[in-house]
Amino acid sequence: MVDPANTVGIPVNPTPLLKDELDIVIPTIRNLDFLEMWRPFLQPYHLIIVQDGDPTKKIHVPEGYDYELYNRNDINRILGPKASCISFKDSACRCFGYMVSKKKYIFTIDDDCFVAKDPSGKAVNALEQHIKNLLCPSTPLFFNTLYDPYREGADFVRGYPFSLREGVTTAVSHGLWLNIPDYDAPTQLVKPKERNTRYVDAVMTIPKGTLFPMCGMNLAFDRDLIGPAMYFGLMGDGQPIGRYDDMWAGWCIKVICDHLGLGVKTGLPYIYHSKASNPFVNLKKEYKGIFWQEDIIPFFQNVKLSKEATTVQQCYMELSKMVKEKLSSLDPYFDKLADAMVTWIEAWDELNPPATA
Amino acid sequence: MVDPANTVGIPVNPTPLLKDELDIVIPTIRNLDFLEMWRPFLQPYHLIIVQDGDPTKKIHVPEGYDYELYNRNDINRILGPKASCISFKDSACRCFGYMVSKKKYIFTIDDDCFVAKDPSGKAVNALEQHIKNLLCPSTPLFFNTLYDPYREGADFVRGYPFSLREGVTTAVSHGLWLNIPDYDAPTQLVKPKERNTRYVDAVMTIPKGTLFPMCGMNLAFDRDLIGPAMYFGLMGDGQPIGRYDDMWAGWCIKVICDHLGLGVKTGLPYIYHSKASNPFVNLKKEYKGIFWQEDIIPFFQNVKLSKEATTVQQCYMELSKMVKEKLSSLDPYFDKLADAMVTWIEAWDELNPPATA
Repeated sequence: MVDPANTVGIPVNPTPLLKDELDIVIPTIRNLDFLEMWRPFLQPYHLIIVQDGDPTKKIHVPEGYDYELYNRNDINRILGPKASCISFKDSACRCFGYMVSKKKYIFTIDDDCFVAKDPSGKAVNALEQHIKNLLCPSTPLFFNTLYDPYREGADFVRGYPFSLREGVTTAVSHGLWLNIPDYDAPTQLVKPKERNTRYVDAVMTIPKGTLFPMCGMNLAFDRDLIGPAMYFGLMGDGQPIGRYDDMWAGWCIKVICDHLGLGVKTGLPYIYHSKASNPFVNLKKEYKGIFWQEDIIPFFQNVKLSKEATTVQQCYMELSKMVKEKLSSLDPYFDKLADAMVTWIEAWDELNPPATA
Repeated sequence: MVDPANTVGIPVNPTPLLKDELDIVIPTIRNLDFLEMWRPFLQPYHLIIVQDGDPTKKIHVPEGYDYELYNRNDINRILGPKASCISFKDSACRCFGYMVSKKKYIFTIDDDCFVAKDPSGKAVNALEQHIKNLLCPSTPLFFNTLYDPYREGADFVRGYPFSLREGVTTAVSHGLWLNIPDYDAPTQLVKPKERNTRYVDAVMTIPKGTLFPMCGMNLAFDRDLIGPAMYFGLMGDGQPIGRYDDMWAGWCIKVICDHLGLGVKTGLPYIYHSKASNPFVNLKKEYKGIFWQEDIIPFFQNVKLSKEATTVQQCYMELSKMVKEKLSSLDPYFDKLADAMVTWIEAWDELNPPATA
């Protein structure tokens, strides 16, 4: 990028967008060498690293990155008994990072995600695209056939109601993956060699009333608007299920965004997802979820939050009650999960007390 | 394409898909020279040309195309008094072609639409893509973030319920436009130079419960499944409104497809839309629609068809009653339109009598 004031034409990096208003949350069990490749795009931002697994292990973070790191001992110390709501031995632990952040925006990325290239061969600045997605409105109330109407070169098409053209505030930006697609274990087993090579140059709003499978690999959101609903549930160690952390959060945030009139986008940016996880291990983690989602999804499709629920916290507490009432019959796990949802909100409010007037 | 049985490797055109099961409907007031460019793709198919305006004018159709042509005199002769439901001096007259066709599938295209090129420079066979869209299922009940899950190289992502992976039968395929985008008059006036250059390589299902602005320029559908709802309304000569013909049909087909469990897709294929219509003329045609759509869209968003409505005709008759009840207060035009909807169904059934057992 060229600074227009720089008349000699030397490229100058502009100040990165929202540099002081965004934290990058990374859950990991290993050295973060993947950040080397992201340096041109991510180094200016602050990182919150949530170290999963053995807390005595030393995680190496590449030189020059500004970060804070929390291991399990830190989580236990900070949250005390409420630490029970944070998963262990599962990337669901990342949501602890959302809770301790003090910034307005969060970008979360997995440590096996690298910089993708667009069809012209240019490196994709994923974070910049997420920020664009979050800063411009969503259109959940009516579908625009030319995709994001706010993008350069696009607009609302004929027949789009003018009263809806201001859109609504965007709360969540869900990015996609080239190379290894985000498949479940059965699909991985059936199609071990499938790679995603299709770069779809679009961002779109997920319509109101429609659920989607939200993947936590490449995700950004407005913490002030939806943070308390971005709980990744109870997964991994001691739990009967894994790999449904982001799905659970996705169902919850979508019904709450719909209720509060907020937007959820999906599409650009892509990251390059480098390695497929082991489908046999995944199947073991997922198989209960594969059954349960057949009941959970109709449950979320029918959730009606009350008019009295006007904050994310209130919505989330209502949702936790409904989970207890309607899903506990599926498995006692949901009783525990509903309790953990309450604990999560209590812990969130403790770490994020409302500003005193 | 190479015939695998052709061992000397000479390219042989395969039999075009659905050659005997699809009609191409073209509304026009001029010579159809645009068909020259489409010859490699469209010549094998039968055309139904609906000549708008002066019936004494002779329309030239390029050599080698197989077609039937109807002008206003033909429409009046065939439908008698019921011809009142077919618009005059408006491309809405095209729906007469849907009615007289005896084929299962319809592709309709405007005479200012040319063959688009994909980003690799290859000519896009729009009809072939529409047929693919129609022959493979839709997924209106849950959003798939990697777009069409049935496409080569794609699938359902993690978290997509297995019970929904068979999808539903597709009834409508809505294609898009490069070059001149389908904008309303106000947007045309504000952005006279905007051209659509973004080729988005995706097909997606419009979720259940979500309305969209359906454009009639590049559209295909299954006539057996949804034909009787593809009525383009009363527009043009003697009517207070124009350029809402396809929008009206789009709202109607969407609520009926949702009710009957059928799918509607949008995205690929692109055509190249050559010339912008006059925005001042368009504004005159559209301005009532621009007001009215603010009430019409909430009306369609709230339409609930009864369980007893199990055929497209029954759904459409219910809809016509609701239009009369709920929209006539907006303008007496809707009273007329509701009557025309009934006439349309009567005419449809007259020309398409149910097969005797």
